[in-house]
Amino acid sequence: MSGIGERIQQADWKKEKHAPVIHCPDAVVAGQAFEIKVNIGEEIAHPNTTEHHISYITVFFHPEGEKFTYQVGHFEFSGHGEAVAGPNQGPVYTEPSVVAMMKLSKPGTLHAVSFCNIHGLWESEKEIKIAA
Amino acid sequence: MSGIGERIQQADWKKEKHAPVIHCPDAVVAGQAFEIKVNIGEEIAHPNTTEHHISYITVFFHPEGEKFTYQVGHFEFSGHGEAVAGPNQGPVYTEPSVVAMMKLSKPGTLHAVSFCNIHGLWESEKEIKIAA
Amino acid sequence: MSGIGERIQQADWKKEKHAPVIHCPDAVVAGQAFEIKVNIGEEIAHPNTTEHHISYITVFFHPEGEKFTYQVGHFEFSGHGEAVAGPNQGPVYTEPSVVAMMKLSKPGTLHAVSFCNIHGLWESEKEIKIAA
Amino acid sequence: MSGIGERIQQADWKKEKHAPVIHCPDAVVAGQAFEIKVNIGEEIAHPNTTEHHISYITVFFHPEGEKFTYQVGHFEFSGHGEAVAGPNQGPVYTEPSVVAMMKLSKPGTLHAVSFCNIHGLWESEKEIKIAA
Ligand SMILES: [Fe+3]
Ligand SMILES: [Fe+3]
Ligand SMILES: [Fe+3]
Ligand SMILES: [Fe+3]
Repeated sequence: MSGIGERIQQADWKKEKHAPVIHCPDAVVAGQAFEIKVNIGEEIAHPNTTEHHISYITVFFHPEGEKFTYQVGHFEFSGHGEAVAGPNQGPVYTEPSVVAMMKLSKPGTLHAVSFCNIHGLWESEKEIKIAA
Repeated sequence: MSGIGERIQQADWKKEKHAPVIHCPDAVVAGQAFEIKVNIGEEIAHPNTTEHHISYITVFFHPEGEKFTYQVGHFEFSGHGEAVAGPNQGPVYTEPSVVAMMKLSKPGTLHAVSFCNIHGLWESEKEIKIAA
Repeated sequence: MSGIGERIQQADWKKEKHAPVIHCPDAVVAGQAFEIKVNIGEEIAHPNTTEHHISYITVFFHPEGEKFTYQVGHFEFSGHGEAVAGPNQGPVYTEPSVVAMMKLSKPGTLHAVSFCNIHGLWESEKEIKIAA
Repeated sequence: MSGIGERIQQADWKKEKHAPVIHCPDAVVAGQAFEIKVNIGEEIAHPNTTEHHISYITVFFHPEGEKFTYQVGHFEFSGHGEAVAGPNQGPVYTEPSVVAMMKLSKPGTLHAVSFCNIHGLWESEKEIKIAA
């Protein structure tokens, strides 16, 4: 079995508009809330139309040296100009960017997975340490 | 039919920890991206444990004078200390707060609905104008 | 505050293609798994195109005489013919129908809420008893 | 970058209770609706408690020989006995099983990914042909 992992695309976000960018501290204090921002198209904007858009970003955390991965959040961007009058005539567009707030008690890796409705799954990751 | 609307609770967020608080400008420029922050427990913190937590916030927009409501986003907070070692032993907690980015071309009302896994559905709303 | 409840539309599913139809037993045995099917467009089919489709159905349960409502499930239909080649050229369509499996230990009301990306929120409900 | 793919676990569902089982025809008629059932714990039941449960199943489709993957659906199981009275005292349990209805116009691979709140991500896949 090859697995869905082979279908999750990776790329340098400075060159590829689908790659999620994870913004958070390199090290955090255990049990203290911190902000994580994940966005798509930071260098090259991704389209946001009824026919082509980023549907969601899911964030996971894998603690260093452990077996199982946790989910941090699943963030859906629902407005893409849909309307009774026709595509891209509607009053609402939601941009592919989210800021969440989280706490960690162990070091590990944050994984962000995004889904473009026509260009599929993309991912990026960032290590995070626990400050001494 | 009474409807689910009767089950969506409303309260003053300064007195009730479940009521979502919507932070956004009172007026925005048509087609220009702006931030919306929605959080729970701004005045009185809500618990965040494996057994009791805020599962998600969904944001809707109803254009003034129109018939249909649009969805802006659905934001799930997935980490609540779950772990193989037992409840509240896990390394990840996601706080019930989200910042999204959106564009509007019409005035209307933003609605935020949140769900506590044991205290059910809660809502709040905020009018938003289009700046001249 | 008027509330999102006023924006959740109700209609007879035999005449209105958006109204969800809830199929489940009228009475179930406490703690015994049973199937619930919820679908849209049972009598009059709803379109399923890139520009116009049912995005999801959420199911809630309110125990008779209690204060808080529980969520049973949230079921998203993601395929609507989207493709790089253009709208409605893609290989996947997901129909607005779901069968889930659940257990209850109290009587109450099942609520189904569906969202059409251009015609907004719709709901229906069905009482369910616990068999003696 | 190692990628989230390395964290998505694979196993024989006859021996491992987390592995999703995909039930659908081996071949379908192009453009004709068919049922797909995905469930967890078909041979060995998975726990369903407030502290330990299957949160969701997401289904993807990758058309044979193509570059991008599509999402079919995302199905969340929300009831796990949560209650004000304490964990596992609530009236609702949602079992990790879903039946959806879909159409395909190309052959390819269906991927199911499930998430256990303490044992992480699991996947399985099934090839599907277009009947002549
Ligand atoms: Fe794209
Ligand atoms: Fe609560
Ligand atoms: Fe519609
Ligand atoms: Fe498990």
